[in-house]
Amino acid sequence: MKLPGQEDFGHSSAHENVLAEEVDSGLGPGPGPGDPSDTDNGESGISQDPLLFIQLNELLGWPHALEWRETGRWVLFEEKLEVGAGRWSAPHVPTLALPSLQKLRSLLAEGIVLLDCQAQNLLELVEQVISGESLSPELRGQLQALLLQRPQHHIQTPGIRPCRGSSAFRNASHDEDSPLKHQNPLRQKLPPGAEAAAVLAGELGFLAQPLGVFVRLRTPVVLEPLTEVILPSRFFCLLLGPPTLEGSYREMGRAAAVLLSDPQFQWSVRRASDLHDLLAALDAFLQELTTLPPGRWDRTARIPPPKCLPSQHKRLHSELQEVTGLSGRSASQAEDWHHHGQHTPSPELQRTGSVSQLCSTFTWPQSQTPSLLGVCWEMPLKVPRDHSLDYLPFRLWVGIWVATFCLVLVATEASLLVRYFTRFTEEGFCALISLIFIYDAVGKMLNLIRAYPIQRPGSPAYGCFCHYPGPGGNASEWTSTKHKDTDVLSVLGLVNASLLSPPECTRQGGYPRGPSCYTVPDVAFFSLLLFFTSFLCAVALKHVKNSSLFPSVVRKVLSDFSSVLAILLGCGLDAFLGLATPKLLVPTEFKPTLPGRGWLVSPFGANPWWLSVAAALPALLLSILIFMDQQITAVILNRAEYRLQKGAGFHLDLFCVAALLLLTSALGLPWYVSATVISLAHMDSLRRESKACVPGEAPHFLGIREQRLTGLVVFILTGVSIFLAPVLKFIPMPVLYGIFLYMGVAALSSIQFMKRVQLLLMPTKHQPDTLLLRHVPLSRVHLFTAIQLACLGLLWIIKSTPAAIIFPLMLLGLVGVRKALEWVFSPQELLWLDELMPEEEKNIPENGLEPEHLFSRNDSEDSELMYQPKAPEINISVN
Amino acid sequence: MKLPGQEDFGHSSAHENVLAEEVDSGLGPGPGPGDPSDTDNGESGISQDPLLFIQLNELLGWPHALEWRETGRWVLFEEKLEVGAGRWSAPHVPTLALPSLQKLRSLLAEGIVLLDCQAQNLLELVEQVISGESLSPELRGQLQALLLQRPQHHIQTPGIRPCRGSSAFRNASHDEDSPLKHQNPLRQKLPPGAEAAAVLAGELGFLAQPLGVFVRLRTPVVLEPLTEVILPSRFFCLLLGPPTLEGSYREMGRAAAVLLSDPQFQWSVRRASDLHDLLAALDAFLQELTTLPPGRWDRTARIPPPKCLPSQHKRLHSELQEVTGLSGRSASQAEDWHHHGQHTPSPELQRTGSVSQLCSTFTWPQSQTPSLLGVCWEMPLKVPRDHSLDYLPFRLWVGIWVATFCLVLVATEASLLVRYFTRFTEEGFCALISLIFIYDAVGKMLNLIRAYPIQRPGSPAYGCFCHYPGPGGNASEWTSTKHKDTDVLSVLGLVNASLLSPPECTRQGGYPRGPSCYTVPDVAFFSLLLFFTSFLCAVALKHVKNSSLFPSVVRKVLSDFSSVLAILLGCGLDAFLGLATPKLLVPTEFKPTLPGRGWLVSPFGANPWWLSVAAALPALLLSILIFMDQQITAVILNRAEYRLQKGAGFHLDLFCVAALLLLTSALGLPWYVSATVISLAHMDSLRRESKACVPGEAPHFLGIREQRLTGLVVFILTGVSIFLAPVLKFIPMPVLYGIFLYMGVAALSSIQFMKRVQLLLMPTKHQPDTLLLRHVPLSRVHLFTAIQLACLGLLWIIKSTPAAIIFPLMLLGLVGVRKALEWVFSPQELLWLDELMPEEEKNIPENGLEPEHLFSRNDSEDSELMYQPKAPEINISVN
Repeated sequence: MKLPGQEDFGHSSAHENVLAEEVDSGLGPGPGPGDPSDTDNGESGISQDPLLFIQLNELLGWPHALEWRETGRWVLFEEKLEVGAGRWSAPHVPTLALPSLQKLRSLLAEGIVLLDCQAQNLLELVEQVISGESLSPELRGQLQALLLQRPQHHIQTPGIRPCRGSSAFRNASHDEDSPLKHQNPLRQKLPPGAEAAAVLAGELGFLAQPLGVFVRLRTPVVLEPLTEVILPSRFFCLLLGPPTLEGSYREMGRAAAVLLSDPQFQWSVRRASDLHDLLAALDAFLQELTTLPPGRWDRTARIPPPKCLPSQHKRLHSELQEVTGLSGRSASQAEDWHHHGQHTPSPELQRTGSVSQLCSTFTWPQSQTPSLLGVCWEMPLKVPRDHSLDYLPFRLWVGIWVATFCLVLVATEASLLVRYFTRFTEEGFCALISLIFIYDAVGKMLNLIRAYPIQRPGSPAYGCFCHYPGPGGNASEWTSTKHKDTDVLSVLGLVNASLLSPPECTRQGGYPRGPSCYTVPDVAFFSLLLFFTSFLCAVALKHVKNSSLFPSVVRKVLSDFSSVLAILLGCGLDAFLGLATPKLLVPTEFKPTLPGRGWLVSPFGANPWWLSVAAALPALLLSILIFMDQQITAVILNRAEYRLQKGAGFHLDLFCVAALLLLTSALGLPWYVSATVISLAHMDSLRRESKACVPGEAPHFLGIREQRLTGLVVFILTGVSIFLAPVLKFIPMPVLYGIFLYMGVAALSSIQFMKRVQLLLMPTKHQPDTLLLRHVPLSRVHLFTAIQLACLGLLWIIKSTPAAIIFPLMLLGLVGVRKALEWVFSPQELLWLDELMPEEEKNIPENGLEPEHLFSRNDSEDSELMYQPKAPEINISVN
Repeated sequence: MKLPGQEDFGHSSAHENVLAEEVDSGLGPGPGPGDPSDTDNGESGISQDPLLFIQLNELLGWPHALEWRETGRWVLFEEKLEVGAGRWSAPHVPTLALPSLQKLRSLLAEGIVLLDCQAQNLLELVEQVISGESLSPELRGQLQALLLQRPQHHIQTPGIRPCRGSSAFRNASHDEDSPLKHQNPLRQKLPPGAEAAAVLAGELGFLAQPLGVFVRLRTPVVLEPLTEVILPSRFFCLLLGPPTLEGSYREMGRAAAVLLSDPQFQWSVRRASDLHDLLAALDAFLQELTTLPPGRWDRTARIPPPKCLPSQHKRLHSELQEVTGLSGRSASQAEDWHHHGQHTPSPELQRTGSVSQLCSTFTWPQSQTPSLLGVCWEMPLKVPRDHSLDYLPFRLWVGIWVATFCLVLVATEASLLVRYFTRFTEEGFCALISLIFIYDAVGKMLNLIRAYPIQRPGSPAYGCFCHYPGPGGNASEWTSTKHKDTDVLSVLGLVNASLLSPPECTRQGGYPRGPSCYTVPDVAFFSLLLFFTSFLCAVALKHVKNSSLFPSVVRKVLSDFSSVLAILLGCGLDAFLGLATPKLLVPTEFKPTLPGRGWLVSPFGANPWWLSVAAALPALLLSILIFMDQQITAVILNRAEYRLQKGAGFHLDLFCVAALLLLTSALGLPWYVSATVISLAHMDSLRRESKACVPGEAPHFLGIREQRLTGLVVFILTGVSIFLAPVLKFIPMPVLYGIFLYMGVAALSSIQFMKRVQLLLMPTKHQPDTLLLRHVPLSRVHLFTAIQLACLGLLWIIKSTPAAIIFPLMLLGLVGVRKALEWVFSPQELLWLDELMPEEEKNIPENGLEPEHLFSRNDSEDSELMYQPKAPEINISVN
């Protein structure tokens, strides 16, 4: 909804985007702005804290076989070693018991805290640590040897380990001797410059006193055998003590690791100058803890990583909130629906979009896909055709007028009016296009079935034979083409007839006779089967992306090429059975379809002169349609959440459309249509998302790969496809209809409007916990949906009746309806249900909206959701 | 897996069940045993604390328009008032900030604590509370008036409220004046005897000091306008103070409510004798808090209620754990898979089973459903039939021998051997049955297509006409039946031929001639369409249960009758198009199929005498098959998690089977088969689950409705179905095959084995976090799955080759393979992957298993999962 002319709104939103991106990202360990995964944006010139990898080494086997073993690790979330299974657990939100945090605090308060220690390796570090401890020399030696001992790391190798019985596998999997020989897959996921922290915890019988040490190294050094990943270590924490009953050192170690993994604590402790700062940071952490009551939450349950990390931005600079306006709402709301709407097994599965999708974008030359314009633009032109006027010259005049009107719209900067196209209008438009896809697919399928009637048992459809023309005439010639079925006919005393199939009969000069000669059996049901198969196959393959089976590459390919694969399957089935299903008709020559006309259309044909002027009326309606089709598509494409860098170019686009219309009218080619579905699919295929994610982190949407190459290539390939006629003619039409049905259904189900329609059927108990439903009474939501449904129904009725000629005006009427809704709904209801129109924005007070001002504190629950990093919601996403 | 003879194992498991049920239920607010929702079990004679409904009334509008408004309520979970939307939020786990708990503690420590207050109504209570406060008389009066003010409650009425613009609806929805006039739907969900607690919090400008009051009433009284639900109140908590910046009183009020909703705290505070006890209970609560780090979890995110509440049992009596053995594992493990396996939108959606399902149980007379025995039992009998021996007498002898062997098995109590049927054997058996369902359905469908060949364009299938016998003979009679197509024939000079359809032709005395007379077009593809339609329809309707659309009654009906509805849809489609699809053949008379035989089979037919003795060999194999079919079904039905009250009756069942076999052999009727799928579907339909759940609570499995009526009725109806022939003959066979396919697929996908097969294809990252995978290395899990797959493949090959006669022996061989696995897998791996065989159990040390003894503390994470209340996992659940 951002236009060049709409600076205020656009600016505040862009500002917020930058803020959200820089500060909200949970990945950045410090509160300083800039996101490590975003460095390729070229934005983060500001210095920031490196990412921290934290490892917990536990001392096990007291008193007989002391050994260190890595039992937990943290980057963003906790991974725990599953000892029995020999694997790392799934990343999860770490949970702690309050007492272990409190014990850790008191241990550190009495322990040794070395900030800016200058040790160059582990030996120096250990010596410095132990020197401060009051132990006998013998014990000190033992402790030093113990600390220098190489810990056991569990390196998860991608390959399959040999299975040699339960005792053997452990040695194989833990790989005591060569932890560094394997390339650790985790290393590749950490950004360059990452640092490590080692927490050592355990029970040591010969210690009389608990020993707590916290070291911050001035320059991070690789403490060679300590950490699993070869990274320079910044922090070192040692928590040892005499054996206790509850294994509390392990929990204290976990608490220390969780503390270090907290961005806020980490920021503070990197800048702490003494013990007091350290404890203050710990206390600040305690103050911000989220607590769950023991009776209602099991501490041992593992919480999967949340979709969005809490914004450090909010924790630190809550005053920044005031800078950001209301505009963040609609995106987060969309996001919110998105979260609740679908079942997503893991963050990695959520990545969408790829260059390979372009392939399927290409698969749909515009001439084949239904579109609003394609369906509607012929309507104003029906009249002249019915009255046997010369069509092409009239069409040329309409084109000339439309181009003129469009140029006037460009000159008057009418594109500014798209500000009035809110979600309400967009959804109406999108729903209409989707419904046209569905209606067209089903309707054409039904026509096809009517063309190939089904043979019922009682129907007289059994007779057809080949009648040879001259009675007895060319008998000699006829009998020379003997068939095995002539004996059947000879029984009847026939000589000039045969049971050849109709095409064969015609080829041999006979005439097929009988009621069943022109019925083709089995084709109707086979076409239906192909239709449903391609539809269901496309749906199923699309959902493979969210499946948890197969490696992500396979999933990606299957999902990206779902339409292509569905078509191939349909073609394969068709070719295998070899039935005479109707196929895609592709002209074999590149020439005007009308015989005997040149490329250029003459402006004055057989029509009277006044028709050139009268063409202005249909052209006016058509201009509205083209303007809306073009501009709504552009509006959707240019939404703020897509983070497009380049300008919108609304006026330039419309200018190009006008020029193209003129050209195609003069040449008698199909008019240009903006093809919303294809444009969005194209953009969807150019999404950039962050890769190599830290365990548990969801990939970020980085932006769109903005270039001019793919668009050009797609349309060149579309043009080249006329030479693919020999291949394309194998595609059965029912398969294409099935894919159109899929496109329509996919597009329809992606818009929020459909989610609200589902709400109508949903018991209150099962309704999703969305921001919309938290803020707007259900009855008002239903009313809004009902109004949208009524508008859609009215538009559909108009489209289907002779009144279709005023359809474009009615489409424009959606904006009027939306305007009228201001009398029905309050501004803040419209804010949640839709977006605000330009005038309404001015009426909204800066802070707090009408009935909720009493409860302004309640909104704190939502504000967090508003500052989530935005990912695009593509209304009509087909592939 | 529990047999009467298997006391040790069975006992310990039963003991655990009782413990789990009594103590683990999170619903019981106190730690005392007994579950309020379980009272109909007749077990809970022990007194226990009533359920507590807690309500937070917030003081809003200082200084101008003071009013109390209910903004939160708790039973098990928190529900928050969505002010904007005028509705209660979805129940969620309450999250608190640590500081608000600490502030609450200090406020209570300095405040007024009245334990065993004897107030009889709100006025008395308020007077007692205020009397302790050092306020000026004027302020005291104001405070008293304020406390007696009626709060605004939000009663959620089920109906739809009128929509009259944004300012009007608020009054309508909050219903200030008559909160008690409506019947509150929440009241019906609370068990009888429930008590209320009211927490009043807010900021009051004229107070100089914070005011904290905690009151426990000696006898609970209805504090009339205070609480939303008319319940006697036990606790009253007042937290008022001068306005602060952070709105901390609201958060303190929430903290107090959460504290009261904690079962452990509630138990303590009901028994507290002074302030010290109260604070000790609060401190104990603090010690057990689960904390989430602020950088990784957003406190404002709402956590949906967990599937299983943490066991109060564990919090209080951790020593009880030692009583319970290992046997709890397999059920909780199954539960665990269940949780991860499927997407379940809300607890209420999970209820399965109903009496109406019986209907679909009935739909499948055994004669129509495939079964292991049905498929296999003819095999040993092929030999005599091939050698043209007298079949029925031989069959009678086989039956006599089988009955004898079964009686021997009964006499020797051989059913005790089912102890060796572990999950491994059960899964192999179930998978085999499911595969037979699928194979049969697809195979029969393919046969059907072969019977109705598809007409390809080139095939000479266009000729068929009706030839009238005598040339010129009965021409007068013939021409009297004139048709419109005779003109076609007259062209050819034919008088004794017509284009009548073959049946009509035969009826009129002619002969159909030509290659296409006996091909029925369109039937093959239409059958395929019916097949897929009924399959997909059954699958889709089954999943309606987990949808969030429609009221639960509609969902339940659609889902329970999914098969029936799918069949009706198929029949409707078939009837609508009127094609000659093959239909279900039902005999119209009740008589032996073989013409000319009586009801009783003579034991000595045309067979030589020694065949009576030789029949013992096939009978032996058949006995094994019947024993396994019968006993594995019984074992699955008698699993501990189903909580069956009545004994298993393994021996009695087998005795009945033997008697029935004898009877049916003598009468020449089909033999008795146990029909695993139907038996399990029947039991599934008799499940009892708790209703009227407190918000956020998942329904419990209470047990099976054990009676003898439904089984009898099902089989009587099955018998009566022979009189339904006129109706049943409208069912097309492809529809039935589609339903069989559905049954096979549903049964196959319900066993854990299939989940493990999926693991083979699943990247490590996406694998579910199950207990199995936490404890057994992935390679070992894969090995176990591969062995199962190999066994299944071997069984299938044997079944398909002439060696099929030894199939029953091979099925028994599964037990041997399982025994041999002990050399490949360690006992604790088998414990997780399978169950233990009787001998192995003795070998397992009491406490701690081999390689994990080092990490025994790690197991604490799982132990919680083991004590979850058990719900049955039905391996083969079809309906």
